Amino acid sequence: MTGTLSSGHSETTKALELPALLEPVTAEMQLVEQWLQSNLVDDSAFVATLLTQVFQSGGKRIRPGLVLLTSRASAPGFGELSPRHIILAVLTELIHTASLVHDDVIDRAALRRGQETVNRKWSDKLAVLVGDLLFAQASICLARLMNPAIVGIYGQVLGDLCAGEIKQMNQQFACQVDWDGYLRKSVCKTASLFSAGCHSGPILNGCGDEVVAAMKSYGTNLGICFQIVDDLLDVTATSEELGKPAGGDLAQGIITAPALFILERKDEVASSFERLIKERAVCQPEGIAEALQIMKSQGGVEQTVKLARDYAKKSKDELRCLKPSQFRDSLESIVDYLLLRTR
Amino acid sequence: MTGTLSSGHSETTKALELPALLEPVTAEMQLVEQWLQSNLVDDSAFVATLLTQVFQSGGKRIRPGLVLLTSRASAPGFGELSPRHIILAVLTELIHTASLVHDDVIDRAALRRGQETVNRKWSDKLAVLVGDLLFAQASICLARLMNPAIVGIYGQVLGDLCAGEIKQMNQQFACQVDWDGYLRKSVCKTASLFSAGCHSGPILNGCGDEVVAAMKSYGTNLGICFQIVDDLLDVTATSEELGKPAGGDLAQGIITAPALFILERKDEVASSFERLIKERAVCQPEGIAEALQIMKSQGGVEQTVKLARDYAKKSKDELRCLKPSQFRDSLESIVDYLLLRTR
Repeated sequence: MTGTLSSGHSETTKALELPALLEPVTAEMQLVEQWLQSNLVDDSAFVATLLTQVFQSGGKRIRPGLVLLTSRASAPGFGELSPRHIILAVLTELIHTASLVHDDVIDRAALRRGQETVNRKWSDKLAVLVGDLLFAQASICLARLMNPAIVGIYGQVLGDLCAGEIKQMNQQFACQVDWDGYLRKSVCKTASLFSAGCHSGPILNGCGDEVVAAMKSYGTNLGICFQIVDDLLDVTATSEELGKPAGGDLAQGIITAPALFILERKDEVASSFERLIKERAVCQPEGIAEALQIMKSQGGVEQTVKLARDYAKKSKDELRCLKPSQFRDSLESIVDYLLLRTR
Repeated sequence: MTGTLSSGHSETTKALELPALLEPVTAEMQLVEQWLQSNLVDDSAFVATLLTQVFQSGGKRIRPGLVLLTSRASAPGFGELSPRHIILAVLTELIHTASLVHDDVIDRAALRRGQETVNRKWSDKLAVLVGDLLFAQASICLARLMNPAIVGIYGQVLGDLCAGEIKQMNQQFACQVDWDGYLRKSVCKTASLFSAGCHSGPILNGCGDEVVAAMKSYGTNLGICFQIVDDLLDVTATSEELGKPAGGDLAQGIITAPALFILERKDEVASSFERLIKERAVCQPEGIAEALQIMKSQGGVEQTVKLARDYAKKSKDELRCLKPSQFRDSLESIVDYLLLRTR
């Protein structure tokens, strides 16, 4: 059973359902959902239809959940949250959603969570504009918080998201093994927003530097873990589980952890794997099938599982600075949930 | 000489050079330029190259100029401006530039100001990301101002820009004469940002409601005038003057003032003009040449010139509430400059 994240965790996984983990912040999550579904309505019925489509097409709301849980877990006496915490959760989901809509244009993706993307259902043009509209709404929320530290943090996130994608685009089909570059890209693309969401609530709560730094690190490590699992699932999951074709990253020349572990071997396996990439065989169904097989059978998947677990552990360790509570328990279990997810 | 905006203005135009009009705020404009050229630099050399290309490819900096002139014209004793006014000017140009970069993706434009667009030189993907990065920088600037009123104003601008484009896209090749719709679209696409730029400085200055409202109206009317002239130039200017093919709006099914004046005649000329649009003849070189000829020879251009002059006059009239100064003089002359421009 090596090579799957859930090995030996069958009992734990049973309890790891996201709604149960977010139960301590159910009321706050409902406020976030109301905001997303109604407060974004424009005078144009067409725009309203578009936004409804974007938000109703699912999404696990992990990021707003993390904002609310870290906020309550670090609040004085675990007290109730202010409207500003809700806005923080909303803007975190808005940024995430906006970046997905633009990512789908950039990747020419037809499916997201098994549903047609905005670019496929309507057009690239409209998807660019819908993403812009969501980023605009996020900016309004951010500015409403009137907190210079949080403005700086989310400003960095917005820059990181773009810079991360630009870096990735600039390195397509490049086969040198650069773990630092891979981690920096994972921080830019994913962990930066996780980190912002996890330590901005404590900042609003007026927590001390130690708690703020620990929550920042919790979010960064969890975000890196999340991205590694994402990269892993692109290799191990079925197309049905992913809601899009498997092996899509490598087919686009994006070299992630399971591929890096093969490439760094510098042996015959690594050479033939590198040839599949360099000669663009991975852009064809037979080539990508061969590459997936190598990553699965030659330890690429297994070592990636271990790497994800390492970041999960680092993330959990940071929670020790919080007083015990149901909120802290959920933050701990969410790490396992994200580690063991299959989509 | 009817049908050209500059008829009877040859002496005036001679003095209407933009650098001369912005001379009263030269020092402040230099600070804005420094900000745009250096404060946006990212850790990635490639991103820095991209941004430099975007900002060095010209642009007249009309919007930051208007921000600075309205700010000084309304400042107590015409006093010097604060760093916040500079940030306001920068963010106004950032939003404008970001929207141009995304517009070029949406319109599949190859040229802008006679230079290759980001989408043409690199790719649509990269242009989406560069636009996002510029919007992100604008959001950071906006939040730094820490002024809830201005945040609301620019939040509306960001929403308007997207909603305006979405509306336009949703009405392509629609031939019903809807002047209200045309004006609303012009406000969303252009006048909303002009208006924001012109009355936010007075708000920072703590001006009274009367001055703030007048500057808002000055900006709105000037913005509508600017958009009408833009629509006019698409019909009257040469491809060399435009830096892109003439007649591009109608070829894309975008119905602007010169076309609306023909369509509203409801006579034989209107019918054959409408057929050119409905049957998509305007998407071909011969069809667009015929449509341009009709707009020029049948009064579409002439009436549009008159419409632009009406908005220019409304704009100038609002300046009466300001005390006389070189800044007010420039604001008045800029109206003529934008009315009489040929590109």
